[in-house]
Amino acid sequence: MNPVIVLVRPQLGENIGKAARAMLNFGLTEMRLVAPRDGWPNPSAGPAASGADLVLEKAQVFDSVADAVADCTQVFATTVRKRGVSKPVVTPEQAARDIRAADERSAILFGPERSGLETDDVALARTIVTVPINPEFGSLNLAQAVILVAYEWSKGAQLASPPTTDLDPPAPQEELDGMIGQLDAMLDESGYYFPPDRVPATRRTLRTLLTKPGWSSQELRTLRGVLSALDGKKLHRGR
Amino acid sequence: MNPVIVLVRPQLGENIGKAARAMLNFGLTEMRLVAPRDGWPNPSAGPAASGADLVLEKAQVFDSVADAVADCTQVFATTVRKRGVSKPVVTPEQAARDIRAADERSAILFGPERSGLETDDVALARTIVTVPINPEFGSLNLAQAVILVAYEWSKGAQLASPPTTDLDPPAPQEELDGMIGQLDAMLDESGYYFPPDRVPATRRTLRTLLTKPGWSSQELRTLRGVLSALDGKKLHRGR
Repeated sequence: MNPVIVLVRPQLGENIGKAARAMLNFGLTEMRLVAPRDGWPNPSAGPAASGADLVLEKAQVFDSVADAVADCTQVFATTVRKRGVSKPVVTPEQAARDIRAADERSAILFGPERSGLETDDVALARTIVTVPINPEFGSLNLAQAVILVAYEWSKGAQLASPPTTDLDPPAPQEELDGMIGQLDAMLDESGYYFPPDRVPATRRTLRTLLTKPGWSSQELRTLRGVLSALDGKKLHRGR
Repeated sequence: MNPVIVLVRPQLGENIGKAARAMLNFGLTEMRLVAPRDGWPNPSAGPAASGADLVLEKAQVFDSVADAVADCTQVFATTVRKRGVSKPVVTPEQAARDIRAADERSAILFGPERSGLETDDVALARTIVTVPINPEFGSLNLAQAVILVAYEWSKGAQLASPPTTDLDPPAPQEELDGMIGQLDAMLDESGYYFPPDRVPATRRTLRTLLTKPGWSSQELRTLRGVLSALDGKKLHRGR
């Protein structure tokens, strides 16, 4: 069950829109707003959402944090700094795991742009989520905090399947051998293999570095074309 | 060794500033700019950096992606969609692991705001980094892409480095470029590049298959010897 993102007393409509965009990138669609400073709806939110309108349209507004999380079994409060509250502190990664493990409705609270969550807001949460950040420069804005939490959440979700490579498989060994054989003949003719007692080691070195790439059949055909072109040039010049 | 963040043809100074802020939050300080549209320095960058001035002050400007990554042994290209390029595709998490395992200078390329990286930019990279995103709503802006990659990087910052293989590390990009340049000149002379309208695609194909192996400096020296032998020039004139 996807977590609910709760923006507590957000100030700028633009930031609400950016948070919606951040959410939808990682498959989160349920946004709740607690006492947005400039009311709701806010005309600045839509343009900043860059198309994540469905999140804004579904957003629900509440008067208090307590009301906004009343139906949630797990409440997390995001903070940058530690507060004088004795609660477990977890990373976004751990929070995502906890939410998934519980499989119940969870809420993640984000505070107002400048000040962050107040102690009373944090008190409602069972757990604090803190993004581990450069101790000498911690400057995450609201949408960035949301995107990091949403990103971690999505990593465990089916929605965001990890990228697959469209790499062609390596060619059968005989095709590689064909290319190496062509090169070998050209090198032999060019006088590359010298002195004679070092030839086996040199051949081995070349084979090793040409085996390393795992070239596909298509790539090997390209390389054979390259070799043929280089060979043709030499013949040309020889005449 | 922390990765270098390379912004390729960034458009707005504001976004350069936001990227700097995103970086410093997670301890990254080395930014490189390739042909920023509005020149550099850009007066809009500072205010958007929210205090991450040291990143902007240290930022270096380059004319081309190749110049910007010349000293890097591992180059990653971030893209949202799959391209018709056969390269390994990894998540930010895997990219962070790879960078840490290599313990050499790595670069991560980010494309311009609207269009993203072009095929020629991606061709310079050995690996593609893709953030797994909602297939129905993928809308990451530049600073968000940077923050997710930087965040993943920082997560491993305290961890012990994973076991390393005894493979030689890949050579710096400029050494690979040197070998490709030598081959390119030979192929040009040989008449390989024909017809003219297919030359850019052919060059890209060659670059991709030669970037794939991650050859070491020693391997590249061997290959340059091979090319010189095939060329005949060095054997006869050079000595």
